[in-house]
Amino acid sequence: MERAQTVERALLLLTAFSEDEPEMTVAELTRRLKLSRTIVVRLLDTLAAAGFLERSARDGRYRIGLAAFKLGSLYAATNPLHTYVSNELARLASETGYTAYVGVLDQAEVVIISHHEGRLPVRFVWTAGDRLPAATTALGKAMLAHLETQQLDAILGTDQIRGLTERSLATRADLDRQLAEIRERGWAVAQDESAVGITAVGAAVLNGNGAPLCGLSLSFLDYPHDPARFSDLGSLVHQAAQRATERVTYYERYGHRAVTTSSKRRSRFIAT
Amino acid sequence: MERAQTVERALLLLTAFSEDEPEMTVAELTRRLKLSRTIVVRLLDTLAAAGFLERSARDGRYRIGLAAFKLGSLYAATNPLHTYVSNELARLASETGYTAYVGVLDQAEVVIISHHEGRLPVRFVWTAGDRLPAATTALGKAMLAHLETQQLDAILGTDQIRGLTERSLATRADLDRQLAEIRERGWAVAQDESAVGITAVGAAVLNGNGAPLCGLSLSFLDYPHDPARFSDLGSLVHQAAQRATERVTYYERYGHRAVTTSSKRRSRFIAT
Repeated sequence: MERAQTVERALLLLTAFSEDEPEMTVAELTRRLKLSRTIVVRLLDTLAAAGFLERSARDGRYRIGLAAFKLGSLYAATNPLHTYVSNELARLASETGYTAYVGVLDQAEVVIISHHEGRLPVRFVWTAGDRLPAATTALGKAMLAHLETQQLDAILGTDQIRGLTERSLATRADLDRQLAEIRERGWAVAQDESAVGITAVGAAVLNGNGAPLCGLSLSFLDYPHDPARFSDLGSLVHQAAQRATERVTYYERYGHRAVTTSSKRRSRFIAT
Repeated sequence: MERAQTVERALLLLTAFSEDEPEMTVAELTRRLKLSRTIVVRLLDTLAAAGFLERSARDGRYRIGLAAFKLGSLYAATNPLHTYVSNELARLASETGYTAYVGVLDQAEVVIISHHEGRLPVRFVWTAGDRLPAATTALGKAMLAHLETQQLDAILGTDQIRGLTERSLATRADLDRQLAEIRERGWAVAQDESAVGITAVGAAVLNGNGAPLCGLSLSFLDYPHDPARFSDLGSLVHQAAQRATERVTYYERYGHRAVTTSSKRRSRFIAT
């Protein structure tokens, strides 16, 4: 119990750093964590010795270190989910020329895990580690559509929701109307809701119990004025998410080795 | 002392995961860390509760979690080094059409931090988090050229060095000859040494004491047969690394705010 608490404190210390406060002094961290200076210094020394923190040569402030980066890269490279999904990202980008994303839900936010760049001269808007309010993104809305009302209440509240642009949804009631459509159709749209000028279509990858594991999306600068084309893109993403769902379900049942050692057998299994 | 040891164990547990072993059972981790099962379970529970580890729905194996990914992304997004270097990456990629990389030295290896994709249809070879023997890469060799002999001995040994292809340098003596040339010229070359068909030129970004902080490189599939063009690319990367070095040195002296609040004043300072 005592031991776990020390580790908890070390993890709190690490997660105290943010894009807004990437560097902090011992005094700032001591205030933030409401712990004694002695304890904080001991934790900092331990984390810095292992490379999870580094010290600025200039003023001795602490910041996140290379060991944390390596660990984070390992998540993106080895999580079975993303391994199976990355093929779908590449396929979506190649079939459409647009940039394809995968992201996961973290409370009311979406964290972008990776993207596959399209051929078209579309700018990158989001990159790995970026966080956005889930209800402003197509992949976020697609995942929210697979949560129970109780879960939605817990993470988004029941009144106003956080937006990023004038076109972002403003209330739970607006969102709920869209979620009902998304459940029916299988894919979500976000137009100018996280960034003006950017449209995206997204769909959710589910586990065996129907809970959302991650979301896939395609984003593009030009809104396709042809409704048929728009719905084609949505269906493409939906199909990709369904294929990924089948693979993940298979993985959950039969494991990683079974999937990777015989891709022939796997694809036959999934097809039936 | 007791406290720091528990944190050390938790960090060892996190870094026990790798691309080869992305998922492990309690038993495997207990064996690996040579600790009691009770201690390992307590650490795993603490790390999983904070999101640094997650459990497979299938068999309860542990793997790296989203919190680690978020922390790693923060390193890439906020490290002042990479902030200053990322402009140079974009400029190198835009001026040449080739893919530009930034990486750091981690003992005898280089860890790729980020890349900026070029316009040309060149394939990605390395991506964030990838690790390569430093002496097989242009940016790695450029950084090694700024270490003392004693440091090189400590991280690479004095005899055989690790390679990846038939063209990789095989011995410290081979490497030392190249490092002497790199010191003279300011930039390094690696041709077919980390991957067959890939050539790269690289240069090191230094701190105020002349120690290598990171390396920049440009990689391309086609070897420029025109020696003048080849040396132009090397000079471009060298100049980019020198500009980044000036910015980092300025940052170390005057801090982050001074740099970002008045970019006009900064560029005037750097120009003189």
